[in-house]
Amino acid sequence: MPNPTACLLIIGNEVLSGRTQDANLKFIATRLGEIGIPLREVRVIPDVRDTIIETVNAVRARFDYVFTTGGIGPTHDDITAECIAAAFGLPWEPHPEAWALLEASYARRDPPAEFNAARQRMATMPRGATLIDNPVSVAPGFIIGNVHVMAGVPRIMQAMFEGLVPKLAGGTPVQSLAVHAHGLMEGQLAEGLAAIQARHPEVDIGSYPYYRPEGNGVALVAKGTERAALEAVAAAMAELIASLGFTPVQGEPG
Amino acid sequence: MPNPTACLLIIGNEVLSGRTQDANLKFIATRLGEIGIPLREVRVIPDVRDTIIETVNAVRARFDYVFTTGGIGPTHDDITAECIAAAFGLPWEPHPEAWALLEASYARRDPPAEFNAARQRMATMPRGATLIDNPVSVAPGFIIGNVHVMAGVPRIMQAMFEGLVPKLAGGTPVQSLAVHAHGLMEGQLAEGLAAIQARHPEVDIGSYPYYRPEGNGVALVAKGTERAALEAVAAAMAELIASLGFTPVQGEPG
Repeated sequence: MPNPTACLLIIGNEVLSGRTQDANLKFIATRLGEIGIPLREVRVIPDVRDTIIETVNAVRARFDYVFTTGGIGPTHDDITAECIAAAFGLPWEPHPEAWALLEASYARRDPPAEFNAARQRMATMPRGATLIDNPVSVAPGFIIGNVHVMAGVPRIMQAMFEGLVPKLAGGTPVQSLAVHAHGLMEGQLAEGLAAIQARHPEVDIGSYPYYRPEGNGVALVAKGTERAALEAVAAAMAELIASLGFTPVQGEPG
Repeated sequence: MPNPTACLLIIGNEVLSGRTQDANLKFIATRLGEIGIPLREVRVIPDVRDTIIETVNAVRARFDYVFTTGGIGPTHDDITAECIAAAFGLPWEPHPEAWALLEASYARRDPPAEFNAARQRMATMPRGATLIDNPVSVAPGFIIGNVHVMAGVPRIMQAMFEGLVPKLAGGTPVQSLAVHAHGLMEGQLAEGLAAIQARHPEVDIGSYPYYRPEGNGVALVAKGTERAALEAVAAAMAELIASLGFTPVQGEPG
């Protein structure tokens, strides 16, 4: 059975304007590969109602899993939850469990903080949403249909994601094996590498040149779900490098 | 006249798998804002022919400018140029100028390197493409229609982009003013901030909590093309922070 597929939506003007370096894509991509739900597409979109609704509906129909980051705080630009409710054609309304969690959390503070209208927005969700636990700062994410809505702050997103993992029906983990060679150029090995790829269509072979003060080179990376095929490809890549007069080194360049 | 809009396509399995941390989005987003071509969407897609063709055609119809990074090297997974030719319904054929540049470059090396079939792929482009200069490693990017095709290696991409800037018809630069306050929480200022946003629809106001060892706080950022409006918003944001008993500090938190 093929692995389920995933799409990530990064929602937020701050990434599109260049203010903020996204730190969520790499984490989510890596973790999803480990649980056999490879990430197939990422879209970064602004805090614009129509764009969020249209994009959510486009991707939830195409991928098994959709993950979103950003836009679930208390301020005017946090419109992810209401847009996702609109995308699903569901009411956006107080979620009893989230409401109780947040109300109690603000009451517990010293001094107690007001559970005001802005904070109540964080407990307002599409009807029928299942909560995603937030062990860092209480305000939960949620799941509706195949869409998993998480915070944009990396520390909070990561905690939410790890709580979510046991609930995801993953597939066969994606593994990788790398071989690299200092001094080698892509143009020298491209033909041989294409031949290896043609013999192993079940493995995804990538070639990545690197440019470093201590010297340039190429890293070859084989990714796939079948260990034996990865090992065969890694051996063939090492042999190709050696046949060109360079020294193959296991793993990515350090 | 409204500013032209841009979309960025990051093409490459290595970003989607989590192997590589993208370093191009932030650079391109920042530079495009400075020249008044705000980035409105980013998509990260794999080295898959049908996906590249479909995505290029979707976004080139919706945005004034499309930029792509990745997939223009000599190896089997470098399929961006041929897919973009297919998206435009154009032949993918040797580009005389690119061919001459690359042929001469390999002949000049000491010892001379072979301008082999793999390297010839880097001089094969959609018919009618205009070259984008590559002062780092010779192999050029290209422009076809409103699509600007650049390398994925950040150093090469940045050099290509800077050479491209004088050819882009930009708009009014996007400027920003930030005010931040240590100790403040978003839930305290959300209502007042929404009121400022409502009074200044021409300014894009963002609220970004930060969590640091030395203490938490909130950064408020106003972005837009009208300096006077930004200054009015920044003053109102500082006043709001002070009214809540906190000290407004100009700029982003250091």
